[in-house]
Amino acid sequence: MNLLLLNETDFFAPGLVKLSDRRFLQLRDVIKLAEDKSFRAGVVGGQVGTAQVVEFNDSEVTLQVRLDHAPPPDNGVTLICALPRPQTFHKVLHCALTMGVKTLYFIHSRKVEKSYWDASVLAPDAVDKEIRLALEQCGDTIYPQIEYRKRFKPFAEDELPQLVAGADGAFFGHPRAAAKVPSLPGKRLVLVVGPEGGFNEFENSLLERAGVMPVTLGSRVLRTEFALAALLAKLS
Amino acid sequence: MNLLLLNETDFFAPGLVKLSDRRFLQLRDVIKLAEDKSFRAGVVGGQVGTAQVVEFNDSEVTLQVRLDHAPPPDNGVTLICALPRPQTFHKVLHCALTMGVKTLYFIHSRKVEKSYWDASVLAPDAVDKEIRLALEQCGDTIYPQIEYRKRFKPFAEDELPQLVAGADGAFFGHPRAAAKVPSLPGKRLVLVVGPEGGFNEFENSLLERAGVMPVTLGSRVLRTEFALAALLAKLS
Repeated sequence: MNLLLLNETDFFAPGLVKLSDRRFLQLRDVIKLAEDKSFRAGVVGGQVGTAQVVEFNDSEVTLQVRLDHAPPPDNGVTLICALPRPQTFHKVLHCALTMGVKTLYFIHSRKVEKSYWDASVLAPDAVDKEIRLALEQCGDTIYPQIEYRKRFKPFAEDELPQLVAGADGAFFGHPRAAAKVPSLPGKRLVLVVGPEGGFNEFENSLLERAGVMPVTLGSRVLRTEFALAALLAKLS
Repeated sequence: MNLLLLNETDFFAPGLVKLSDRRFLQLRDVIKLAEDKSFRAGVVGGQVGTAQVVEFNDSEVTLQVRLDHAPPPDNGVTLICALPRPQTFHKVLHCALTMGVKTLYFIHSRKVEKSYWDASVLAPDAVDKEIRLALEQCGDTIYPQIEYRKRFKPFAEDELPQLVAGADGAFFGHPRAAAKVPSLPGKRLVLVVGPEGGFNEFENSLLERAGVMPVTLGSRVLRTEFALAALLAKLS
């Protein structure tokens, strides 16, 4: 936890917060509490700053919170990702969010097993927990918008072209593409990441028709979460 | 498994291999065996190509192996990484190896807990298993060289300057560095990655004295394995 993420409802007076939940336990047991000690803190959807210990006991801590600057900027990338297998889903989500993605679409694809859509990791509470952990990791306060599309074709034909039209560039990872991943810092981009084993030919052709350009990271096949980290790092 | 990784000892005749171990089970149960089906294959330390099913039953498979091209080139980066906590160690190792790192040093640092050095994940058999999984993932056959240094100061003062002198550039990730990570494809580089919480001031100064330049990925704090993926992607 690199940022103590607070809700508006945690405040019992202006600038004063009392915590006794998971966050208190982490402050007490991992970060260690001490009189006057201060931590980075932020309020969901708002500014970041510091939280200073006023008093604490075995079950709760009172903190004085001063929020005075903006959270880090987003990375400008709208991520569209074939729904990964459950054990990979939270790694992909964590990677995307900590690297500054604020708009994500998880979509179906031929090589996505139907059962992945029923996975417990997709339950709103589970996703919310992952979002908070990611924001706490990277020092951010701004929630992402996460969308799910269970049908590839209508998404690729109807929604994707509009997302592409609103961006300065749109790319999908393809191991045999001719073009390398470009460096486009500060641009609004669309990035499409395929399933393990890649999109099939039909899906590739729909992506290209929607204006998404195939790019390659090289001939090495990476796990989805590392391919995503590498693509985001190169693009932005 | 994107590459069936073979040993010289798997061959019972020129170009012919019989398998009944973990690799056979993965071919049988995950990839699915069929007459004449072929897979990407390579031999440890050697070339890559294809392995075609000759015959199989419930307990073994015979494959005809044709190796005709070189594995992917390495990425030119010598990675020096503060020993991560055990559950992160295999992610860092996997990320580094699949992205083409062939020389790794895991080193001590003030914020590395002493107990990490006794972790079972560092046992040679456990490391060998991770190496094979990584090579199978990324389609490579070349084993890395992995070194461990349990004392930071002698490493930073005596060995590191020589590694830096043999490279075209040397960098370490530092959240408050002024310089961004440069793009230096095709160069021989040294990359130093700190522990969670970063190197301390003394360590930073020894790194700089050894000729390693601080660079930043931005103000977001990433998990070690994603910071590593991002740094490797940007550098090469």
